[in-house]
Amino acid sequence: MSNTEARPLADAIRFLAIDAIVRAGEGHQGVPLGMAEIATALFTRHMKFNPADPQWPDRDRFVLSNGHGSMLLYALLHLTGYGHFGIDALKSFREMGSACAGHPEFEPAAGIEVTTGPLGQGIANAFGMAVAEAYLNARFGDAIVDHYTYAFVGDGCLQEGIGQEMISLAGHLQLGKLILCWDDNQITDDGSTSLSISEDVSARFRVAGWHVIEVDGHDLEAVSAALVMARRDPRPTMIACRTVIARGIERLQGQRGGHSGKLFDADSAAARRELGWPHAPFEVPADVLDAWRSAGRRSEDEYRAWQARVAALPAAERAEFERIQAGRLPDGLREVLEAYRRRAVDAGDAQPGITISGEINDLLVPYLPERMVGCADLEAPTGHKRSLHAFTAGDRSGAYVHCGVREHLMGAMANGMAAHGGIIPLAVTYLAFSDYERPAMRMAALMGLPVKFVFSHDSIGVGRNGPTHQPVEILASLRAMPNMRVFRPADAVEAAECWAVALDHRSGPSTLVFARQALPTVRTMHAAGNLSRRGAYVLAEADGGNRRVTLIATGSEVALALEARARLQEEGIATAVVSMPCCEIFDEQDAAYRASVLGAGTVRVAVEAAVRFGWDRYLGERGGFVGMPGFGASGPAEALYDHFGITPAHIAAEAKRHLQSNQG
Amino acid sequence: MSNTEARPLADAIRFLAIDAIVRAGEGHQGVPLGMAEIATALFTRHMKFNPADPQWPDRDRFVLSNGHGSMLLYALLHLTGYGHFGIDALKSFREMGSACAGHPEFEPAAGIEVTTGPLGQGIANAFGMAVAEAYLNARFGDAIVDHYTYAFVGDGCLQEGIGQEMISLAGHLQLGKLILCWDDNQITDDGSTSLSISEDVSARFRVAGWHVIEVDGHDLEAVSAALVMARRDPRPTMIACRTVIARGIERLQGQRGGHSGKLFDADSAAARRELGWPHAPFEVPADVLDAWRSAGRRSEDEYRAWQARVAALPAAERAEFERIQAGRLPDGLREVLEAYRRRAVDAGDAQPGITISGEINDLLVPYLPERMVGCADLEAPTGHKRSLHAFTAGDRSGAYVHCGVREHLMGAMANGMAAHGGIIPLAVTYLAFSDYERPAMRMAALMGLPVKFVFSHDSIGVGRNGPTHQPVEILASLRAMPNMRVFRPADAVEAAECWAVALDHRSGPSTLVFARQALPTVRTMHAAGNLSRRGAYVLAEADGGNRRVTLIATGSEVALALEARARLQEEGIATAVVSMPCCEIFDEQDAAYRASVLGAGTVRVAVEAAVRFGWDRYLGERGGFVGMPGFGASGPAEALYDHFGITPAHIAAEAKRHLQSNQG
Repeated sequence: MSNTEARPLADAIRFLAIDAIVRAGEGHQGVPLGMAEIATALFTRHMKFNPADPQWPDRDRFVLSNGHGSMLLYALLHLTGYGHFGIDALKSFREMGSACAGHPEFEPAAGIEVTTGPLGQGIANAFGMAVAEAYLNARFGDAIVDHYTYAFVGDGCLQEGIGQEMISLAGHLQLGKLILCWDDNQITDDGSTSLSISEDVSARFRVAGWHVIEVDGHDLEAVSAALVMARRDPRPTMIACRTVIARGIERLQGQRGGHSGKLFDADSAAARRELGWPHAPFEVPADVLDAWRSAGRRSEDEYRAWQARVAALPAAERAEFERIQAGRLPDGLREVLEAYRRRAVDAGDAQPGITISGEINDLLVPYLPERMVGCADLEAPTGHKRSLHAFTAGDRSGAYVHCGVREHLMGAMANGMAAHGGIIPLAVTYLAFSDYERPAMRMAALMGLPVKFVFSHDSIGVGRNGPTHQPVEILASLRAMPNMRVFRPADAVEAAECWAVALDHRSGPSTLVFARQALPTVRTMHAAGNLSRRGAYVLAEADGGNRRVTLIATGSEVALALEARARLQEEGIATAVVSMPCCEIFDEQDAAYRASVLGAGTVRVAVEAAVRFGWDRYLGERGGFVGMPGFGASGPAEALYDHFGITPAHIAAEAKRHLQSNQG
Repeated sequence: MSNTEARPLADAIRFLAIDAIVRAGEGHQGVPLGMAEIATALFTRHMKFNPADPQWPDRDRFVLSNGHGSMLLYALLHLTGYGHFGIDALKSFREMGSACAGHPEFEPAAGIEVTTGPLGQGIANAFGMAVAEAYLNARFGDAIVDHYTYAFVGDGCLQEGIGQEMISLAGHLQLGKLILCWDDNQITDDGSTSLSISEDVSARFRVAGWHVIEVDGHDLEAVSAALVMARRDPRPTMIACRTVIARGIERLQGQRGGHSGKLFDADSAAARRELGWPHAPFEVPADVLDAWRSAGRRSEDEYRAWQARVAALPAAERAEFERIQAGRLPDGLREVLEAYRRRAVDAGDAQPGITISGEINDLLVPYLPERMVGCADLEAPTGHKRSLHAFTAGDRSGAYVHCGVREHLMGAMANGMAAHGGIIPLAVTYLAFSDYERPAMRMAALMGLPVKFVFSHDSIGVGRNGPTHQPVEILASLRAMPNMRVFRPADAVEAAECWAVALDHRSGPSTLVFARQALPTVRTMHAAGNLSRRGAYVLAEADGGNRRVTLIATGSEVALALEARARLQEEGIATAVVSMPCCEIFDEQDAAYRASVLGAGTVRVAVEAAVRFGWDRYLGERGGFVGMPGFGASGPAEALYDHFGITPAHIAAEAKRHLQSNQG
């Protein structure tokens, strides 16, 4: 197939995009029109994929990082024969409930590998997929895991800081199966890229150890040749494709308005004349559609051969491969966590929260080879490396990725690993720096990816490093995020419980936060089940008569609440302590359980070394709060707890004050 | 002064740092020991500063971006004679209330230009300072504004994405007075930089158009010569200083432990022997201290000459310069906003929220020449450029910075501008992308900088671009941040009021969020004062008897609440609507005002096209909420409002349901 023969295939993408955007009344034509030849080259000649089985584990991954160009992806999925993208789906582009949403939305069964739109996320996800592939390849061999990850990327993704984080680390790790196609159209939303960038972007990649090829992005043969070279090179490759944005719409092409300027019927008509496309809207001539559908079947032989190789695997290896693909936890895991939990009750000692989490994770190593840990240059203080070794350019069997001081990439890498499948990713850093990866955490929540975001140094307990390093508002800001579960265990017992719940949770991310300081054991009695599984529970019921006060605490403050309870009980005030390691799960419990835990009619005081924001829903109009009035300060942790009044004496006083004001 | 003569000066920094860190029991010796010669070169030969007047407007700015090395800064401030940093302050390093906090904390009167610690922020602040200098230089001339901005930077700052955003844009804008000294010690917290980076960092700067000089960072003469070259070059300069981390502590130098491994008395003693420093802890020999104090006076002549030049300015120009330095708003500004507010009441039309904000800002142009606007490649849809022109490499008089798709840099740039003084910075993008700049927003709140963070596209009103672009949790996550005011005006009248309050607010940042969609005028009556100034107010009191229901709404949902009120009133249910453009200010009001607004004993229903998180503090146990259950969806805005039940009918039904359940 020459450039001439391929032209109608590329134009089929163009006109499906134009027709859908004209019909919707809005959309972004710049990418589908500018990258039509590049997409045609990739999908008709290079991509390994099977529309009949979109989730084929060894498919090549394709990420449209410039997600605003979503019609490019939908057109490709339609043309190659993915079932979710019939012509009616394209006709409903941007309507409620359409498979063709404004930006691509994660739906691997439909052929959408990852949600994109917020710039830079997609290429960082692709990076994570390439790491996952390399790791699984090392584990299962070329016969079972051996695929490329392709990403299309625009100028915006490469201006975002996360873009450089990805370039830098992908070069360092020499991820040779990661291939980017840069839509070098010299236009962003504001107009010419010369408004905001002067550098030679290709040189930036070369400096970081990438293989860079520069081509005319409208020359399908040249793009195809570049893809061949890219696949052969041991370095990650960036193909800089010089393109004309919105090519085909004469009024807008090559200009600012090409990005997403409104398209009219007249534009569509003019483009049809200009490109010689006499077909009606949404009509793809049979020969062109046939060529595309045949491209959609191009990997069928490879697919069958791969299936045969999997079938031929030794039974145990096959079962293991299928287990991790399905995301099923291995046998024995629950028992390990349960045994740890029991030992923690018996040991009853105090350990730094983050050390506990590291210890638990270390126990899981033999059971969870699919777990990979990324950490942003805080290996020692976050303690989640231990018996793992590093994933490097020379050793793909390591499960620990030294991400450098690149939190944002780390989070998005974890998302890419989870979206790839076969990996349980952890992303580890200090809680104060979670803001750096928050855009990626939001994407995990939106996609419902089972990423575990692990944080240490969770409060003023950080101490002398001061307010920059002391989270006070971050628990609240993460709890505000839909579909994100935030766990803050009180001790080693709850830590094991929370890890068990988080590992079981597959429909969304979990955030686990741990104290830097020692957590005394508060769960001193053996419990039959996992008490954290309901989000909150009565840790110490009131003694002597009806409960009058309920102290609700999390993490390191549970021990303080227990001490406050002792003081109140001494004064004859029947007081219970509720430990609430996970608000989100508690909120899902039935009303009767919630009322029994919170104690209807009692004075409630919440205790957390953080801001009050979000706590009032448990407190009612009679409630109190002991926590942080604002940002922290630099000083020893104990001095800070005293200074801010997060002490048993103050908790008890607050409870009494509210008892009195309610009685008054 | 030769290298040999200067050595005791550098060693004075080293031993003050060692002594303070040993005494505190923790700290980061890597930077002060590794950069002692660089700091000595800069402060004794190049920096323009005056310890007797730390806030001299035309001083050179110094930013310690690798803020964990705080003892370097404290030692410099002590040695050069800044009043806040007597030897007792150094002895209390990392104690509660010490001027020597774990990380440097913004205190310009003390000589600390900006809070640093979270990596990458400092160099981006320095970038903002350099933009501010260039703009003010263009406005007031070399005689009044003409200074350099120096930043020390470690590997971490340059691994962070924001670091590259800064490199790229500073190169593009050719900020020739921005000079970085990179502490190229090849060590990060995890160990060798080779764990996570392979690229030639200097080359990365060169690609972006920087002037790069590579020197031995322990050769004071070489560093000093590089600083001379840096100041002469029209490009921004990065001096790559090859250093040995923790140089002087033989046990740790050049190694991972050099960063912050615990120092003992024995290390201190060994270093004293090694470097020939026989002096007691915290003792600086008189000749060395004299040399340093004399360096602290090196700019005295320049200072006096500058004062004379300012005094000689025409009166109006001098008054204007002093006004912007003091951060005082100009005469006439309030009247402009008030006139706009009155016109908006009379006009009573519906306009997109963000258009309103753009219109207001346009009116302010002649009054606020000190205002600079940064925007992350969304000039057109956010509408805050209008009569401003761009700040470019060739034209420093422009007040609009095309930041490119670099939100994080934009936010930190705004912080640097505000910290510099003489500038009122706005940072503008979509609300969904605020997460990208959140680490900078947190720093603004922590420092109490009067930055205006402006966001458009504030809810599902975004429509078809879908959930990636629809904030639902972001209002809550920003409201959770201490010292951050979040404004969400309901119409043009409130927008003018909120802008007036935000411009008056000098002790912290303000976030102003605006709808993409049209906001009908809800303030149809003239009010005597600025009703938004108390955060919330009764927009429509209940008719006919005691108020039974209070609907509390913000932004675009206020109009829906008014429609719901009409329905309820029709059914004889006395209903008030409270508009709450700023929760934080409302929370500061006295209890009587709050009770009068919220309506004691009424059923309260909050209405906001966002999550409920944080609203319960206004609702009590009888309250209801109409808003978003989670993330949004892709579809037309009106369809989304219907789909999620954010409609007058549903609001009214929710109020009735709660009335019934409370009566039941």
